[in-house]
Amino acid sequence: MGAEGRPELRLALDAMGGDRAPDMVVAGAEIARARHPNARFLFVGDEVRVRPLIDRLPALRAVSDLRHATDVVTDDAKPSVALRAGRQSSMRLAINAVGEGEADAMVSAGNTGALMAMAKFVLKTAPGIDRPAIATVLPTPRGQSVMLDLGANVDCDANNLVQFAIMGEVFARTILGLERPTIGILNVGSEEQKGHEEVRAAHALLRGNKLNLAYQGFVEGDDITAGTVDVIVTDGFTGNVALKTAEGTARLYAQLLREAFSSSLMAKLGYALARPALTRVRKRVDPRRYNGAILLGLNGIAIKSHGGTDAVGFAHAIGVAISLSAVGVVGRIQDELQRFGVSPQAAPRTAAG
Amino acid sequence: MGAEGRPELRLALDAMGGDRAPDMVVAGAEIARARHPNARFLFVGDEVRVRPLIDRLPALRAVSDLRHATDVVTDDAKPSVALRAGRQSSMRLAINAVGEGEADAMVSAGNTGALMAMAKFVLKTAPGIDRPAIATVLPTPRGQSVMLDLGANVDCDANNLVQFAIMGEVFARTILGLERPTIGILNVGSEEQKGHEEVRAAHALLRGNKLNLAYQGFVEGDDITAGTVDVIVTDGFTGNVALKTAEGTARLYAQLLREAFSSSLMAKLGYALARPALTRVRKRVDPRRYNGAILLGLNGIAIKSHGGTDAVGFAHAIGVAISLSAVGVVGRIQDELQRFGVSPQAAPRTAAG
Repeated sequence: MGAEGRPELRLALDAMGGDRAPDMVVAGAEIARARHPNARFLFVGDEVRVRPLIDRLPALRAVSDLRHATDVVTDDAKPSVALRAGRQSSMRLAINAVGEGEADAMVSAGNTGALMAMAKFVLKTAPGIDRPAIATVLPTPRGQSVMLDLGANVDCDANNLVQFAIMGEVFARTILGLERPTIGILNVGSEEQKGHEEVRAAHALLRGNKLNLAYQGFVEGDDITAGTVDVIVTDGFTGNVALKTAEGTARLYAQLLREAFSSSLMAKLGYALARPALTRVRKRVDPRRYNGAILLGLNGIAIKSHGGTDAVGFAHAIGVAISLSAVGVVGRIQDELQRFGVSPQAAPRTAAG
Repeated sequence: MGAEGRPELRLALDAMGGDRAPDMVVAGAEIARARHPNARFLFVGDEVRVRPLIDRLPALRAVSDLRHATDVVTDDAKPSVALRAGRQSSMRLAINAVGEGEADAMVSAGNTGALMAMAKFVLKTAPGIDRPAIATVLPTPRGQSVMLDLGANVDCDANNLVQFAIMGEVFARTILGLERPTIGILNVGSEEQKGHEEVRAAHALLRGNKLNLAYQGFVEGDDITAGTVDVIVTDGFTGNVALKTAEGTARLYAQLLREAFSSSLMAKLGYALARPALTRVRKRVDPRRYNGAILLGLNGIAIKSHGGTDAVGFAHAIGVAISLSAVGVVGRIQDELQRFGVSPQAAPRTAAG
């Protein structure tokens, strides 16, 4: 048992993944440690570089182990190559720790494709799921929503999209605490005939579903931030572009505001007065608060942190891993899939029926 | 010849398209009239509703004609149905006016799919182009960029994407005035192996191109607003979602700011002081300033206004139609395609070569 009688949660951290690793990983763990007294960390990475960083932080050192890894998966490595040649990489050994039950979850800010390939290989896809998906939580005026897939599968068929809908629904219920999450499929319009074959077929499947899902139909790009539905379902190509477009737009807006507030003495004074209110907005939309995408549909928890994040963002990704472990998300999704009676065999393959 | 010796430009306006039509169309034309003394308007729509609106504005009436149309294309009409049953619609008759040389360009805020289908049928696709695309201009920190396709083609092959790149390049040169516009294909990562087959094949074609295009490779969602390239090439599904996601994110940001500025007396005072600077930002990103998407690749100019726009936005769409007519964009694109030696026959169909 960990501190305060809560069960200990064991996190394996890829200490070498991310633009600012390993410093950012260790600093992020230190922030997370203070927030989660029941967490224990297994750092995986180059001992020579990581050990001194941990040794500087006695409180962190007290709840940490370090496993040496000789290799690092580079950002430009093909997933297939990383899978073959990266068996001794920090990313792979961190995933192995989850696969072998040594850790409850793992977090990496490294190469997304490699992480997905390795996590699928080691942890295996959950029963009832054909393909895992990457999901993230997003801010909306009403609170938060979840969007998936964000890049695990650039091509998706209707059946994949239906399974994403189910996984997203369970995630929204268990993690966001929504009683009956609403679901929409991302499309270029809300009318039935809009979009390509895959979204129309998935729409037909979910419309005719006996799953008792609160499926609302098609939604459009501006519905993502409007919070029109709680779960936004899309293929990994579109989801990845949409997420990065939203991030880029927020960045442009923030930049223009910064320029505006420094453009005159009056504007600077105005900023000084409005600062507390503006800081609240900035915190609300701070991408670091939404860092930590979940690889859903595996027999284990793997979290992808943004590669360019800092310690604050990485600490948030660790927090996501801890929340998911604490609620036992893997078991919950599998229970729900069984409750829905969904398996790759049982799910219809076409919209024709 | 029109006012001030400049050649008269004749605009056919679908008076019945858009949520706030016909009032918004007539009011938009009045704004455009004041800005463009050489413009002449042909309103197409329900005479009983449109005539009184024009009659209230003598200066507009003096440069306007009205053609009665019995039908209106509804927003939920399928393109194929609109094409068959909408022969007497305001949208169709406005397109016919361009097809018959009565007008230099047409503008509609109506059903996008129907507009595309009708414009293709009446104006025909330009030589060298397999499929027309919808393009729009977007704000970036460096100025402006152009993105296409935004929804004309939900499925695109590599050849379509290459043609979009060429059309976008010519557009950026002739309309945005860029000497050597840079081009990127929207993808989920910048590495060669990223993305689905179509983008990788288009990438190979443009990398190996003899077209002397400034092709920069793959770009990601956040590059759209960063202005990394001048021309963003994508399929109509992804482009539509990305554009609407950007609009939605800007709206969320604006809403959070409004709330922040009214959250306390200090914040309100701060807003009052910073107001002129903030108004400049708001104007800079005002979606109405970017209203007016262009159907590129046709033998004539058709402009799609946002359906929910107001008179200011519609006036901007008319302005886009006028600019395109003035530079003779249709002829310029055709000249450039010939210069590039590109035709549907000549362009390679696969990346294998």
